[in-house]
Amino acid sequence: MKIKVIVTLKSGVLDPQGKAIQQTLNGMGFANVKDVRQGKYFDLDISENDEQKAKFAAEEICKKLLANQVIEDFKII
Amino acid sequence: MKIKVIVTLKSGVLDPQGKAIQQTLNGMGFANVKDVRQGKYFDLDISENDEQKAKFAAEEICKKLLANQVIEDFKII
Repeated sequence: MKIKVIVTLKSGVLDPQGKAIQQTLNGMGFANVKDVRQGKYFDLDISENDEQKAKFAAEEICKKLLANQVIEDFKII
Repeated sequence: MKIKVIVTLKSGVLDPQGKAIQQTLNGMGFANVKDVRQGKYFDLDISENDEQKAKFAAEEICKKLLANQVIEDFKII
């Protein structure tokens, strides 16, 4: 089954990449863009039919590989 | 208002980064991970109270900057 994961920087952690995108957008005429934060998105295909088990595996995967929990949060959707 | 955007590679486009993650996970003992596709996630803060208008602006932003529509799809959530 497919599990979607979003990994984002914790609020308070500087995001220079997002800032660069915001400034570029302002320069392109999108003056009403006040802030941009960039994160990562993962589509995991886990061969497990039980949704609960698949989500549990995804959580383990996030903690062990995909997210650096010191500066990042993850959300399983 | 905050608009969330996910940019993913179109299906059929090779994703070596996702493949590397999948192989690493298999090596770490997550043998049931069959496929991983990586994408990008953006949190846009647009100073616009009308949700319709904010989403329309986000769509323009995706088409013009965030997504390469030749190889990528975007989704506004």
